[in-house]
Amino acid sequence: MALATRRYSDPVHGIITLDRGDPADGLLMALIDAPEMQRLRRIRQLGLACVAFQGAEHSRFAHSLGVMHTMTLALNALRRSGVALAPETCLQARAAALLHDLGHGPFSHVMEKVLHQRHEDWTARLLGAPETTVHAILVAYDPELPRRLAALMAGEFQPRFVAQLVSSQLDCDRFDYLLRDSLMTGVSYGRYDLPWILNALAVDAASGRLIARARGVLAVEEYLFARYHMFRRVYFHHALRAAENMLVAMFRRAVTLAAEGALAFRLPESAMDKLLTTRPLTPLEYLSLDDADVLFYIKQWQREPDPTLSDLARRFLERRLFKSLEVSDLSPDQIADLRARISGALVARGFDPESYLLEDSAGDVPYFGPYAPDALDRHIIVEEGRTHPRLREISEVSAAVAGLRPYRLHRLCFPEAARDVAYEAVRRLAPAELGR
Amino acid sequence: MALATRRYSDPVHGIITLDRGDPADGLLMALIDAPEMQRLRRIRQLGLACVAFQGAEHSRFAHSLGVMHTMTLALNALRRSGVALAPETCLQARAAALLHDLGHGPFSHVMEKVLHQRHEDWTARLLGAPETTVHAILVAYDPELPRRLAALMAGEFQPRFVAQLVSSQLDCDRFDYLLRDSLMTGVSYGRYDLPWILNALAVDAASGRLIARARGVLAVEEYLFARYHMFRRVYFHHALRAAENMLVAMFRRAVTLAAEGALAFRLPESAMDKLLTTRPLTPLEYLSLDDADVLFYIKQWQREPDPTLSDLARRFLERRLFKSLEVSDLSPDQIADLRARISGALVARGFDPESYLLEDSAGDVPYFGPYAPDALDRHIIVEEGRTHPRLREISEVSAAVAGLRPYRLHRLCFPEAARDVAYEAVRRLAPAELGR
Amino acid sequence: MALATRRYSDPVHGIITLDRGDPADGLLMALIDAPEMQRLRRIRQLGLACVAFQGAEHSRFAHSLGVMHTMTLALNALRRSGVALAPETCLQARAAALLHDLGHGPFSHVMEKVLHQRHEDWTARLLGAPETTVHAILVAYDPELPRRLAALMAGEFQPRFVAQLVSSQLDCDRFDYLLRDSLMTGVSYGRYDLPWILNALAVDAASGRLIARARGVLAVEEYLFARYHMFRRVYFHHALRAAENMLVAMFRRAVTLAAEGALAFRLPESAMDKLLTTRPLTPLEYLSLDDADVLFYIKQWQREPDPTLSDLARRFLERRLFKSLEVSDLSPDQIADLRARISGALVARGFDPESYLLEDSAGDVPYFGPYAPDALDRHIIVEEGRTHPRLREISEVSAAVAGLRPYRLHRLCFPEAARDVAYEAVRRLAPAELGR
Amino acid sequence: MALATRRYSDPVHGIITLDRGDPADGLLMALIDAPEMQRLRRIRQLGLACVAFQGAEHSRFAHSLGVMHTMTLALNALRRSGVALAPETCLQARAAALLHDLGHGPFSHVMEKVLHQRHEDWTARLLGAPETTVHAILVAYDPELPRRLAALMAGEFQPRFVAQLVSSQLDCDRFDYLLRDSLMTGVSYGRYDLPWILNALAVDAASGRLIARARGVLAVEEYLFARYHMFRRVYFHHALRAAENMLVAMFRRAVTLAAEGALAFRLPESAMDKLLTTRPLTPLEYLSLDDADVLFYIKQWQREPDPTLSDLARRFLERRLFKSLEVSDLSPDQIADLRARISGALVARGFDPESYLLEDSAGDVPYFGPYAPDALDRHIIVEEGRTHPRLREISEVSAAVAGLRPYRLHRLCFPEAARDVAYEAVRRLAPAELGR
Repeated sequence: MALATRRYSDPVHGIITLDRGDPADGLLMALIDAPEMQRLRRIRQLGLACVAFQGAEHSRFAHSLGVMHTMTLALNALRRSGVALAPETCLQARAAALLHDLGHGPFSHVMEKVLHQRHEDWTARLLGAPETTVHAILVAYDPELPRRLAALMAGEFQPRFVAQLVSSQLDCDRFDYLLRDSLMTGVSYGRYDLPWILNALAVDAASGRLIARARGVLAVEEYLFARYHMFRRVYFHHALRAAENMLVAMFRRAVTLAAEGALAFRLPESAMDKLLTTRPLTPLEYLSLDDADVLFYIKQWQREPDPTLSDLARRFLERRLFKSLEVSDLSPDQIADLRARISGALVARGFDPESYLLEDSAGDVPYFGPYAPDALDRHIIVEEGRTHPRLREISEVSAAVAGLRPYRLHRLCFPEAARDVAYEAVRRLAPAELGR
Repeated sequence: MALATRRYSDPVHGIITLDRGDPADGLLMALIDAPEMQRLRRIRQLGLACVAFQGAEHSRFAHSLGVMHTMTLALNALRRSGVALAPETCLQARAAALLHDLGHGPFSHVMEKVLHQRHEDWTARLLGAPETTVHAILVAYDPELPRRLAALMAGEFQPRFVAQLVSSQLDCDRFDYLLRDSLMTGVSYGRYDLPWILNALAVDAASGRLIARARGVLAVEEYLFARYHMFRRVYFHHALRAAENMLVAMFRRAVTLAAEGALAFRLPESAMDKLLTTRPLTPLEYLSLDDADVLFYIKQWQREPDPTLSDLARRFLERRLFKSLEVSDLSPDQIADLRARISGALVARGFDPESYLLEDSAGDVPYFGPYAPDALDRHIIVEEGRTHPRLREISEVSAAVAGLRPYRLHRLCFPEAARDVAYEAVRRLAPAELGR
Repeated sequence: MALATRRYSDPVHGIITLDRGDPADGLLMALIDAPEMQRLRRIRQLGLACVAFQGAEHSRFAHSLGVMHTMTLALNALRRSGVALAPETCLQARAAALLHDLGHGPFSHVMEKVLHQRHEDWTARLLGAPETTVHAILVAYDPELPRRLAALMAGEFQPRFVAQLVSSQLDCDRFDYLLRDSLMTGVSYGRYDLPWILNALAVDAASGRLIARARGVLAVEEYLFARYHMFRRVYFHHALRAAENMLVAMFRRAVTLAAEGALAFRLPESAMDKLLTTRPLTPLEYLSLDDADVLFYIKQWQREPDPTLSDLARRFLERRLFKSLEVSDLSPDQIADLRARISGALVARGFDPESYLLEDSAGDVPYFGPYAPDALDRHIIVEEGRTHPRLREISEVSAAVAGLRPYRLHRLCFPEAARDVAYEAVRRLAPAELGR
Repeated sequence: MALATRRYSDPVHGIITLDRGDPADGLLMALIDAPEMQRLRRIRQLGLACVAFQGAEHSRFAHSLGVMHTMTLALNALRRSGVALAPETCLQARAAALLHDLGHGPFSHVMEKVLHQRHEDWTARLLGAPETTVHAILVAYDPELPRRLAALMAGEFQPRFVAQLVSSQLDCDRFDYLLRDSLMTGVSYGRYDLPWILNALAVDAASGRLIARARGVLAVEEYLFARYHMFRRVYFHHALRAAENMLVAMFRRAVTLAAEGALAFRLPESAMDKLLTTRPLTPLEYLSLDDADVLFYIKQWQREPDPTLSDLARRFLERRLFKSLEVSDLSPDQIADLRARISGALVARGFDPESYLLEDSAGDVPYFGPYAPDALDRHIIVEEGRTHPRLREISEVSAAVAGLRPYRLHRLCFPEAARDVAYEAVRRLAPAELGR
């Protein structure tokens, strides 16, 4: 008497339906139920963004379901527009969409800096690891499936438009995360007209690439600006970046202390302990980690004998975040001077600059246009003109998109105690001296 | 036992509240109840847009309330940000916002072409016309008020930021119409984050001009793109423009017939009759006109003896609209050639090209930047930088806004009967010949 | 080069897509383009509701598209839940949904009172009238189609659940109008969870009737309350009802004057003239009427010699509406006494009570439950229980629905001039005397 | 150079603004920044609801800000409607709204069952505990404030309507949580028209109680149904309840093992250890607990030697939840019989029924009407009638509300392994035997 139909009620997409009677849906249901996917319920999609946007508490699990769902919508739209789609291709596209975040660990963007590992590599590794349930489910369905999905996520896949829907500048991952992050942060910038984009998707017969019909160009423009705005306003928010840098500093300090045998709270043989002693993790150890481990350790660190680690942990948990000073406009000399003054103030107040003066550099390429390599089918191709439609790269058609240039924000982060010194130093820079 | 508080329930803004106990609100309530404002209930905000977007049936009355409301919100936001605002200034700003569309006639953008009159001039004239109720209400409150409001709408007003909120590239008119038209057309492009813009508004003490704080720049960008997208997708929609051109052709034909004494349906001494015989209208005559008159006449014209007028009227009412062929990319010679071929086809089928081959030219300046004169405080000024904020014109700060260039769409409109000839002619232009 | 796909952008449903390649969609597109459907663009869905809710200006055309669309959604949902649906049945259901309001005239609910005609009868008559384009399109597709659609709308159709989706207490007409009217009025009461209801729809194999699965019961409850709230707050709004009664009074007066030869503005042989002289209309004459005619005539009536008609017309156009006094709680004697006092006050001020003292009676059955006959499959049947599901009538399962009882509101409407007298009279009724 | 204004961007309410220049806002900002409030970021509002609704991952912190904000809105609405409000009263109301969830621990509704403690008691205790920052902030502002806030939350406060806004059947807590939980779960049932309710709020001068004007009755009805629907569909969801019961079973098992010295993972002197050994916690120990501790322990328990605890922990983390069988309709004898059969099946399969056969009883009083005591001003009082308004308890006015009766759901929860036996047993109960 198992329920034939499963319905997920989603804040972004409404009802997401899967039907046990359909083989593809059945496989997706099994994958969703696998422990490796369920673990994503315990990993926040936006890591520390909730320190700046209290509503940004959603998990990678909810996002993964959303990506699977937008992939289903995109494939249906392509089919309606006349594209022939083999059932197996659809299944692979939807499974890849569902599993694309499998390799994310807790606070990924932070931990990757500490561990020098990429979540994409972990995803590929986990798909192929015999000890995972996901792998077992996939090979039971088709022994080639793990390899196919890895190829799909890596952009090495035919037909090309399917790989592009999985990962490109116009992919289902972004379709979902912009809408979801926008809703959860209360930042309306991230909204765009998904149904209208879907209705404009097509496939160029000659190249097998995804294109947008002329009627969709404005919607794609809106979507690119939505992404740009979300990066500027949310993902690069100064408080979020300060918290991330504090987390990096804490981990680096803990790793140092562990190496020196000076870390009090240890659970030997645990995955976290391996991580803090920079030993490699097995797939199952990696999968055992989630946000709760990191948070639990930070809570324990409040009582560490090392004053730096315990102080950082308490600041972090009580959200007494470092201040951020944007220095993007300053010259290297000016920055060096600033850094020296702040360091001095910190030392004078008993803070070790190595852990208390953090440099943040956040950059994005809002759109990889003609000035960027296109190894991965990165360009968005659109039709121009109704009477003689031609295919164009979108920044050739849209001056606004052409105006979306790469940028980088530089910031110095430090505790409140150094604030007055820092701000006074900046104030003293005559505007004429400003770098730009 | 009059109700102390009046609540308008609005699809865009929720509840709009006015309180009889407040003198300013009391004046606004009286103005809303004046017959000249009530007439705007019978004039559609977007004229013929409903032929392309069936939901775009909202009136100028609903929009006018919305502009008044967004002005109230903007003034409250400025007050919270520390701007001193005299009660009389607020009242004038809100009254100007409410009354700014007073001079609109039915299907304004069309009729202005036929009549060579501007609705802005009619608004100014009506404010000063003693025979209107609005004028009487205003002078009873303050004899200077009509003159003040006219100055405010004309941009000649101190403080400047108030005039800018009434009419500029960042004004309450646009605040409302983008949200309203977007909702009603189902086109999500027009949405933007109004609360966030309002929260970023401020006044530059030196110049008295409206500015946006640095935190609002992205929201203003989004708003400018919303406006750009609405023009491209909605206001310049080919079906809407075809219908407008058909209406112009019908009126021109009726005026010609009336001049020749060949128009059968006449109601002598009516405002419509004066209009069709190009006699000037008094304010009360002008105010007597609304969408119902125009529609009623078109319905009568279905039975006119003149075959052109009756045919156009039937096509219009049954929504058998002319086809639109965009020729923006073609050279003048190519267009002349096309026009000749279509004319030939029309004549061969018994259609008079004067009424059946219509040229449409629709252009917009998405943002009046440095390349445009700034007589009316047109530029949007924003703060840049947090440590040393400076005032900048927004296109200096935003490459995307700088990319928003003026454009113009050229189209030929003609009946279905000439379609094959026209499309075949265009197809035969080799792509190499295309103008751009 | 006709567009293969047509997209309607809708404020309620987003994109509504029809595909010329699909025979059913092709038929629906032809029907939408027929002059009889296009005419519904000029008839407001809620008649005079915009006097109370300025946003309620949407047309029956937009609603009709919406009903067709919700029918498509409902049929798809049933198919997904395992119901076998013949293509012809779907086509008939969707065509009936699209055409169900064909027979509406301008301000239907008002005009039906004056003319003693039902719009349902006109819909049936127009479907069968050879002179209509709709009829011609239908018979060209299938000579039986007009008869089938009429049967479907009349509830005489197999399978029963299709007839129920067209017209019942859980039908696509209500699905659309609640969402649409709610959005346009800004009254959030009318919202309910349509996707969840659709996902719960099923067909009882034994009876062929539409049912809701147990998981949908709460959503159906919410929907019934949405409808109840919309009637109480919107459709029975005192200002709307006052305006409707004024329109009835105006028409009755005009008919009387026409009979006496005392009506100045006449357009002999026009449909409106036949209507004012109570002569029967042919189908084409009936179809020639829309809101513009009624509004145009009211505008002319402002200049009629009869002081009552001209006064009522001016009040109506300037929205100086009659006041409404609710007397539902009063006894018949108390009402008679009130009526006499108000009449006296009106006569003393020179108003004829026949046109100036109007009685309004507005009643609704929020849910036809066990106490109502069920000739038309009126009851909503739901499943109860998961382990032993049984079919129950919803008011047996939901005490809240059982609490939704029929009600009737009585009001007296009269001009402002009689207000003080009326309110003073009511005030003097000691609370103890109040009817209830 | 501290920012004068703080803006919280909220998914439900948009922008929530606090201004450092205002003393009340300044106090609220300090309270928000206190570690005790920041801790609520690590406690999910709906505990385990995310197992059934993947989006329900929001924290009590976001909710607490929302309650403070709706309180601000409610007080503003009352002030506009003419209620005199002392600044200190407003401050106390807003602070109480912000702090009302201070005493919540991780997965409160579950832990309260295990610990026999109420979060309301903890809130009161923490307000008065000198070791908390919140207490220090409050007494620095006004030494009486902790006592006043406790009284306010306990309903012992004058004016009564303020206490009612803090806690009653129409309070700001519910105003926020219904909207927030509804958005996050994707369940639209929880939406209702908050602005319209706020606009209808007033205070009865005679009793000092909160009332709703007649115009708000339908909105209050909608709100009560929203709450009813959220309980039925979300808060009492079978999967959520199964997960909660599993968590209770795990904790009980861990407490038993700890008492027997058979629990392997222990961190002596930690708050969790005191909790597992049923020793009382100090305020600071209590405050040190959040969701991360509970999740971290469950993760460790996967490796406990006790097979029951380790099995339950793995099931819980992998979301292999117990099945729920609703038995509300069955007689006590039938339930006892079922329980015996399921127990037998479990024992046969090696499961200890004490931890594997769980009984769930979930009941709610959707509205405390006349049949319930009114010690805490529980009844919702509304005005009825416009000409002679009288105060009525809402269930006297609304048959629908009167139909909202208390109810209770009984369920048996057990692992999949006992499913067939259980369902077969239920199936064999002839419908005639069913309890109701």
